[in-house]
Amino acid sequence: MKKEKVVLAYSGGLDTSVILTWLKETYGVEVIAVCVNVGQEEDYDEVKKKALATGATSAYVVDVVEEFITDYVFPTLKASAVYEDDYLLGTSFARPLIAKKLVEIAEKEGAVGIAHGATGKGNDQVRFEATIKALNPHLKIIAPWRIWDLKSREDCIEYAKKHNIPIAVTKEKIYSRDQNIWHISHEGGNLEDPWNEHDESIYMMSVSPKNAPDMPEFVEIEFEKGIPVKVNGEEYNPVEMVNLLNKLAGKNGVGTIDIIENRLVGMKSRGIYETPGGTILFKAHNSLEKLTLDRDTLSFKKTVAQKYAQLVYDGLWYTPLREALSKFVDSTQECVTGKVKMKLYKGNCTAVATDSPFSLYNEEFVTFGEDDVYNQKDAEGFINLFALPLTIRAIMNEKKAKKEQDTI
Amino acid sequence: MKKEKVVLAYSGGLDTSVILTWLKETYGVEVIAVCVNVGQEEDYDEVKKKALATGATSAYVVDVVEEFITDYVFPTLKASAVYEDDYLLGTSFARPLIAKKLVEIAEKEGAVGIAHGATGKGNDQVRFEATIKALNPHLKIIAPWRIWDLKSREDCIEYAKKHNIPIAVTKEKIYSRDQNIWHISHEGGNLEDPWNEHDESIYMMSVSPKNAPDMPEFVEIEFEKGIPVKVNGEEYNPVEMVNLLNKLAGKNGVGTIDIIENRLVGMKSRGIYETPGGTILFKAHNSLEKLTLDRDTLSFKKTVAQKYAQLVYDGLWYTPLREALSKFVDSTQECVTGKVKMKLYKGNCTAVATDSPFSLYNEEFVTFGEDDVYNQKDAEGFINLFALPLTIRAIMNEKKAKKEQDTI
Amino acid sequence: MKKEKVVLAYSGGLDTSVILTWLKETYGVEVIAVCVNVGQEEDYDEVKKKALATGATSAYVVDVVEEFITDYVFPTLKASAVYEDDYLLGTSFARPLIAKKLVEIAEKEGAVGIAHGATGKGNDQVRFEATIKALNPHLKIIAPWRIWDLKSREDCIEYAKKHNIPIAVTKEKIYSRDQNIWHISHEGGNLEDPWNEHDESIYMMSVSPKNAPDMPEFVEIEFEKGIPVKVNGEEYNPVEMVNLLNKLAGKNGVGTIDIIENRLVGMKSRGIYETPGGTILFKAHNSLEKLTLDRDTLSFKKTVAQKYAQLVYDGLWYTPLREALSKFVDSTQECVTGKVKMKLYKGNCTAVATDSPFSLYNEEFVTFGEDDVYNQKDAEGFINLFALPLTIRAIMNEKKAKKEQDTI
Amino acid sequence: MKKEKVVLAYSGGLDTSVILTWLKETYGVEVIAVCVNVGQEEDYDEVKKKALATGATSAYVVDVVEEFITDYVFPTLKASAVYEDDYLLGTSFARPLIAKKLVEIAEKEGAVGIAHGATGKGNDQVRFEATIKALNPHLKIIAPWRIWDLKSREDCIEYAKKHNIPIAVTKEKIYSRDQNIWHISHEGGNLEDPWNEHDESIYMMSVSPKNAPDMPEFVEIEFEKGIPVKVNGEEYNPVEMVNLLNKLAGKNGVGTIDIIENRLVGMKSRGIYETPGGTILFKAHNSLEKLTLDRDTLSFKKTVAQKYAQLVYDGLWYTPLREALSKFVDSTQECVTGKVKMKLYKGNCTAVATDSPFSLYNEEFVTFGEDDVYNQKDAEGFINLFALPLTIRAIMNEKKAKKEQDTI
Repeated sequence: MKKEKVVLAYSGGLDTSVILTWLKETYGVEVIAVCVNVGQEEDYDEVKKKALATGATSAYVVDVVEEFITDYVFPTLKASAVYEDDYLLGTSFARPLIAKKLVEIAEKEGAVGIAHGATGKGNDQVRFEATIKALNPHLKIIAPWRIWDLKSREDCIEYAKKHNIPIAVTKEKIYSRDQNIWHISHEGGNLEDPWNEHDESIYMMSVSPKNAPDMPEFVEIEFEKGIPVKVNGEEYNPVEMVNLLNKLAGKNGVGTIDIIENRLVGMKSRGIYETPGGTILFKAHNSLEKLTLDRDTLSFKKTVAQKYAQLVYDGLWYTPLREALSKFVDSTQECVTGKVKMKLYKGNCTAVATDSPFSLYNEEFVTFGEDDVYNQKDAEGFINLFALPLTIRAIMNEKKAKKEQDTI
Repeated sequence: MKKEKVVLAYSGGLDTSVILTWLKETYGVEVIAVCVNVGQEEDYDEVKKKALATGATSAYVVDVVEEFITDYVFPTLKASAVYEDDYLLGTSFARPLIAKKLVEIAEKEGAVGIAHGATGKGNDQVRFEATIKALNPHLKIIAPWRIWDLKSREDCIEYAKKHNIPIAVTKEKIYSRDQNIWHISHEGGNLEDPWNEHDESIYMMSVSPKNAPDMPEFVEIEFEKGIPVKVNGEEYNPVEMVNLLNKLAGKNGVGTIDIIENRLVGMKSRGIYETPGGTILFKAHNSLEKLTLDRDTLSFKKTVAQKYAQLVYDGLWYTPLREALSKFVDSTQECVTGKVKMKLYKGNCTAVATDSPFSLYNEEFVTFGEDDVYNQKDAEGFINLFALPLTIRAIMNEKKAKKEQDTI
Repeated sequence: MKKEKVVLAYSGGLDTSVILTWLKETYGVEVIAVCVNVGQEEDYDEVKKKALATGATSAYVVDVVEEFITDYVFPTLKASAVYEDDYLLGTSFARPLIAKKLVEIAEKEGAVGIAHGATGKGNDQVRFEATIKALNPHLKIIAPWRIWDLKSREDCIEYAKKHNIPIAVTKEKIYSRDQNIWHISHEGGNLEDPWNEHDESIYMMSVSPKNAPDMPEFVEIEFEKGIPVKVNGEEYNPVEMVNLLNKLAGKNGVGTIDIIENRLVGMKSRGIYETPGGTILFKAHNSLEKLTLDRDTLSFKKTVAQKYAQLVYDGLWYTPLREALSKFVDSTQECVTGKVKMKLYKGNCTAVATDSPFSLYNEEFVTFGEDDVYNQKDAEGFINLFALPLTIRAIMNEKKAKKEQDTI
Repeated sequence: MKKEKVVLAYSGGLDTSVILTWLKETYGVEVIAVCVNVGQEEDYDEVKKKALATGATSAYVVDVVEEFITDYVFPTLKASAVYEDDYLLGTSFARPLIAKKLVEIAEKEGAVGIAHGATGKGNDQVRFEATIKALNPHLKIIAPWRIWDLKSREDCIEYAKKHNIPIAVTKEKIYSRDQNIWHISHEGGNLEDPWNEHDESIYMMSVSPKNAPDMPEFVEIEFEKGIPVKVNGEEYNPVEMVNLLNKLAGKNGVGTIDIIENRLVGMKSRGIYETPGGTILFKAHNSLEKLTLDRDTLSFKKTVAQKYAQLVYDGLWYTPLREALSKFVDSTQECVTGKVKMKLYKGNCTAVATDSPFSLYNEEFVTFGEDDVYNQKDAEGFINLFALPLTIRAIMNEKKAKKEQDTI
């Protein structure tokens, strides 16, 4: 009798190594280990070997870095979607892509389910599982951290020893981290007390502003329809570009935030996020939009951005609403073409100059000097009608007061 | 026969000096010069003298700095209202207060109208006039820049010379500026080309990040119900506090922005704004809200903040909607009590630690380690229902596809 | 040894009678039966007797009809909160009040938990439990329908027979209903197919429009600050008023809807709701707001209303956001004073005339004839500035096209 | 020397006949009369003849009825855009189309400007002129009602007589009306007092509910991607369909509203609008969306609808925001395919049954009986996490209260 197969989102770390064995022991299934490369630093050959050594029936390594940037990161950039005003969604939008790959392999392999190593307290379980349900509602989902008796890293190490699972003897792991080409997050450890200042030595993609160069560095980003296409005048493919900007921003101490955020599952958590290149891109893009979008569009796009960010954060990428919002966004980006000069200096990242063939900034209209295009007398009529509701209200109040007085 | 009176918003500068004389010449009225002190640096005795010397019937200097902070700035801070994501509304919310004082004096003096020196291209004319109409719709409004033939600073100088108006012979004025205790704005000059990088030598309340100290400076802000009450553990009245924070932020290069903004009157303009102390307060307040407001409230408050900012920017302070939004905001601030440690360093201004008796951050719930309060198994049920619309949709699509296939 | 106590939300019907016994059998607890009267038709003495006869240690009947109208219905009316454009939230806002009473009695009785008869598929379980958690997070919650093996009404009847639980031998129950003074809902039965037209014989608070009188009936509602205080010129207390309007509306076939709605728990359901008097009040209130609220306020209030409705529907009454929204709403209602004449005719319910001392409708301004207050010439300036973004955009496109052509 | 040409939006009525002559007299221009047929009842040959008889250099009659329905009405229907909850925008979206035709003819004829007969108090002047500016900012705009000395209908009649302008001697015109295939509006007369009940004898497209048939009439509408394609199983082109539905609805007294609305130009006005067929289509479309759109999409689409309606009302059809919103809308309509059975009865118009291949209503999930697809136990986990913010808040308050007590 043939064993059933389960696809496991496998990283090569302690947790998923233990899960691999645990799945086999608990359910008597074959495990297909799948490591999705979204840009995290890793020796992928080693990961593959380790998976097989730990007992996987087969092991996949899937490189989706470019797909990640093109189909998930850039649409979100175009939307200006930022969760709770700060978080550039680095982990959030990687999850649906990873889950999509898991589903594809599960279907190809004829697996009955998918297992993942996300805990029962975080957002990632939701992002993985919502995507799986959207793409294939028949796949079973196994989230061992919600089921088994292991409660901690220590329990896992013990389990690994008992089951001869090959694990690297690493120094104590203080922080919980998630990395991809776009960002790295740090949670846990002494960050769990919001009154503790975080230790800058945890940074992995950037330096502390204090250690950044003493001279500003300038970088020019060029966009076409909201998508960055050139840096300092040269074309790059999406992956090269983000890598390049990560380096530039990282060495200038740009793109690190320390926030309390509201998880979807109802609790607050604290995280340090490094998004060096992404920070440049978001800020540059925002500046270009200020030059090219009219007030109404810019304003409503903020409403869209907030909803977009929430959907991405909540793992609802594959939903009709997210798709419809993207259509709105794409339409607004038709004119978001042009270049932005960014200044990087010891943690600061600011747009210092913008230019666009679609610029709605019109020097003739705005100049303090004389002009032929704008009749200042128009302003009187404008104000009289714009403020008419205030005038009418004032008259109403006056009449009412008079009437009440007359009654007395 | 007695002459009619007109109240003039008078600053002592070239424009309003010329207007003073022009009003008398053009309409044969008495002019009451009113200089409202919202914290701009000025020799107010000189201003008064100058007004009388220029021909004002009487001259008022009204100090409203504390009222400005308490009744206009802090409510907007509590609302987290920021126009187009960047502008802290420094000029915007000073205008209704100034206009209110003009109306009060006009009513007291029995004046028939109010004159101001705002041009026909900007937002300030709207802010002044909307407020006047809201408070007293019977007052006539005179905006000479929309009426007379003078087109430029040069025309004004010539007019002044011809009419013996005492004006300071100043060096050429490059930028148009507006200052109060909260901020200073710079517009015009070479800023009118968005591709020009602005010259940091224009700064008046702050230094360039490059010239800021090489060591970070920390400052602790304490809030009560959304209002800052202590700095580094000591109580300050609102005016002292803003002055102190302006100094701290200014010397660390904090609070300067360079933006393209959408004016209410339909054109884009570019401005440099320095809001040193205000930047600390907004960022600190935001961080404290992240600790004390739940996700739903924080999210909806963003919608409110956006509308609030637009109303303030547009001069619609004295409207039922602005007042109703303030009621919403005040309710959310009941728990925004606590302290925030801010780090200032070469232009960076970041919250590094937060604490509140109303903190909704609960270490017990969020910890990676074991806990008694949270049952991870709950997450499965949560996800199953949270993602049920995606499941149902996937089933629908499947059934539909099957049906369509069967039909073939 | 003393037994622990559990408070049960008891209606006297089959389900909660079975639950009462089941709780005792399963947990060995004492059961305190609590029947909360929110206006549903019931012989409350009988309910009490029955609870005791079924084995309750004690039985409470709590009349909260007036509190229901005053503290839950009217605030929602003022907010114009309607779920998904149609549903007047009849069941939704009764739940938090009922849960609050259960908590109060649980605390008074020293009970360890609260049990309710809501199923695991609906919204009511969420509304009950969210309220209990908000008011006393230590109380255990028991929802038998999510736990026991009984799957249907038939299972319950069998259980009741086996345990000698006194149940009324009723004819087969086709629809699931929930009633209070504000409304009655009908779900289930043949309504479960959306293509079935509903049978008008199910109505309990109203007649079919076809059976309503052939002549229209008029009723005048007077509001003070958004709250209805008089009907046809006479004052009524809230309970009398709603009863009176229910009668008037019901006999004219007013206030019945048939909708598909999105439940919080992720599925769609279909319901018929009768809200006769409430429909008159909502429509009258809306008309009065159109007379007394300015455009901006009316527009933003719609955004608030939508969020308010969602919170109420989702059982999030006792949240900071709902409370803050209410502050906004109350502020807008300061001027919603006046009267509305409603016409009821065979299912139609329309406002035919409105009047208010705070009316912002100003005949002088709007008249087609001559007037002194409005200068039509102002409109030109208004349009020129209002449409300036369109003009600037058109100029930009033109320049751009020209430039591109020149380049060729 | 050749005379300049001006295009006039010409209806054949008193006002535009007078304007035709006045333009020639005042500016010495040639007038090109253009009558745009958007479905208003008119003898277009007569109109053309009259224009020439009155002195037009040439006269156009342009039939855009189908374009009107297809490109303006249906997109707005898909958006569910309704101004201030009631007004189906009948006049609003006809204006940009008319203006577009005027611009096209002006460009073809080499005219220097466009004249229209809208007054200086209404919205239509803004809608016409905003569109003209968006499409050709160089065209001059002449709005005689804002310029000339004529103040009333009487003045016009006198002017006409003096200049031998052929006008029909009609009975006194009480109401100001605007008609097209989608609706007719009535303003003015005794409607100007909001406390006057309107006289049903003014109806032109429908009967009073009282005079409608005593038996309900059913009509089935079929939609494809949000667009109505069949009535009672038969295909119709857009124009035929709207005409047919106007007849059906009109004879059943459906689609008449009486509202106070907020004009863009700052004042309130009152109007009676008849939109018989449109009312059926909007209600049917809404019902189908309830069956096919998920909760999140439906909810956010309301926000979009509100903004869409405001843009259309304000004449901002040709803006990037309106276009971007339409992209969002179109994306949501992919699944809005199916049929709705509507019941028309004496003014009532209600959806009684809906069906769709994309239905997200799933009887299996929602049924009160047993099912295999939904595990009621999931609800407990869902509620625990959904309500976790309330729990955490309650714990916080408790701890805080305890701490404060301990301090005492």
